[in-house]
Amino acid sequence: PRAVVTHSSGNHGQALACAAQAEGIPAYIVVPRTAPQCKQDAIRAYGAILVPCEPGDKSRAETASSVVQETGGVLVHPNQDPAVIAGQGTIALEVLEQAPQVNAVVVPVGGGGMVAGIAVAIKALRPDVKVFAAEPSNVDDCYQSKLPGELTPNLHPRDTIADAVKTSIGPNTWPIIRDLVDDVLTVSEEEIKRATWLVWERMKLLIEPTAGVGLAAVLSEQFQALPRDVQNVCIVLCGGNVDLRSLTWLTELSGKAE
Amino acid sequence: PRAVVTHSSGNHGQALACAAQAEGIPAYIVVPRTAPQCKQDAIRAYGAILVPCEPGDKSRAETASSVVQETGGVLVHPNQDPAVIAGQGTIALEVLEQAPQVNAVVVPVGGGGMVAGIAVAIKALRPDVKVFAAEPSNVDDCYQSKLPGELTPNLHPRDTIADAVKTSIGPNTWPIIRDLVDDVLTVSEEEIKRATWLVWERMKLLIEPTAGVGLAAVLSEQFQALPRDVQNVCIVLCGGNVDLRSLTWLTELSGKAE
Repeated sequence: PRAVVTHSSGNHGQALACAAQAEGIPAYIVVPRTAPQCKQDAIRAYGAILVPCEPGDKSRAETASSVVQETGGVLVHPNQDPAVIAGQGTIALEVLEQAPQVNAVVVPVGGGGMVAGIAVAIKALRPDVKVFAAEPSNVDDCYQSKLPGELTPNLHPRDTIADAVKTSIGPNTWPIIRDLVDDVLTVSEEEIKRATWLVWERMKLLIEPTAGVGLAAVLSEQFQALPRDVQNVCIVLCGGNVDLRSLTWLTELSGKAE
Repeated sequence: PRAVVTHSSGNHGQALACAAQAEGIPAYIVVPRTAPQCKQDAIRAYGAILVPCEPGDKSRAETASSVVQETGGVLVHPNQDPAVIAGQGTIALEVLEQAPQVNAVVVPVGGGGMVAGIAVAIKALRPDVKVFAAEPSNVDDCYQSKLPGELTPNLHPRDTIADAVKTSIGPNTWPIIRDLVDDVLTVSEEEIKRATWLVWERMKLLIEPTAGVGLAAVLSEQFQALPRDVQNVCIVLCGGNVDLRSLTWLTELSGKAE
């Protein structure tokens, strides 16, 4: 391709920028103006061209479309592209190889590419292993879709500290989630912050709050009430794009940490 | 023993508390009033009794002495106890086993127990591997001792963000450092902060600034000027006791990170 284009300020944007650089192809990454500075810096560090857009799925998609037309590039969608979904499924292959004793895998869900890819791989190879999607209550379109068994976009998503999943599942990830994901667990902002804090302070891993969504789900009453045979749980800590300069929520949590 | 006593708010205090709990022995940990809250919390979480003291080596030692007399306990010195030095030497055994291609090991130095133990093990098994101590310029008693080849306590140590090495080498660690450590590298507070930030943002490891001292030393011009055959460098990231509630220096560094 003459260029690659995507709209993702997180792992996908960085990965596409990195891959394009390796292939000597220009990469255009559409990024909401509100994206954390560290994400924008990381994308630039991989040599990609940042294209700012307004926050929200609509502006992201429209801006990316314009860039595709102007550059003659190929859109690599961050979560609906089948190759991206399949690529994220390789996480499951690694989990099964390194931890065959696993009983359940918990994956934060935004656009759903990661949980869909993982569910495809897990259910093909080890259908006994449960796959759970974890989602902030504030942007619970996946949960709201699973309930009636029908894709139900969240028309008025609220804000969430888990900025990387502040997007909706789509036409390619929904059927996989509908058929292969066992359940969707939702968590509050407070639960996400506490779980993220716990990983930082005890595991010494600098995850981003979106990755804390998975642990928050596992610590929830709903998950803890699961049958005893779900003993070995793998949580996908799906990102570390933390803007260290804007950790104001930490002081707000002060004294609350366990 | 009827009890164990030490003065260390960091890894040693926590380790002794943990070991004492496992053995059902009371542990008394003397901690400067100024020690980060997270360290005090961690020690308490292991069931030890905190005994506050004033900051400074003198108050620490005196308070610990009193506690030993009152409790009939045994003092386990955080860095001069030969068993502690030997225990920290097992880090080197792990390094040699897991990374036999290593050419140099870099270890932050405070009381010197860790670098002494590592130097003993490395020079016994692989004398071709270099051992460097890394020290904040603000508390450079190890550097000032190596220069003349004579133990030179720092009578007026300045403050440093690397709080865990704000102490001096002593009678048991000095002869080992004198004879077996190849060189001492000193680094500024700014270098420590930048190195710590780099590990956080790129490695996603939540190290404490004291652990950043080692990377800061490796990034220094002095280290980079070393002969080319020092290719594979192991830096001991010696702690993760970060007080997340007091990261004010992060905002001060804002915009400076690479």
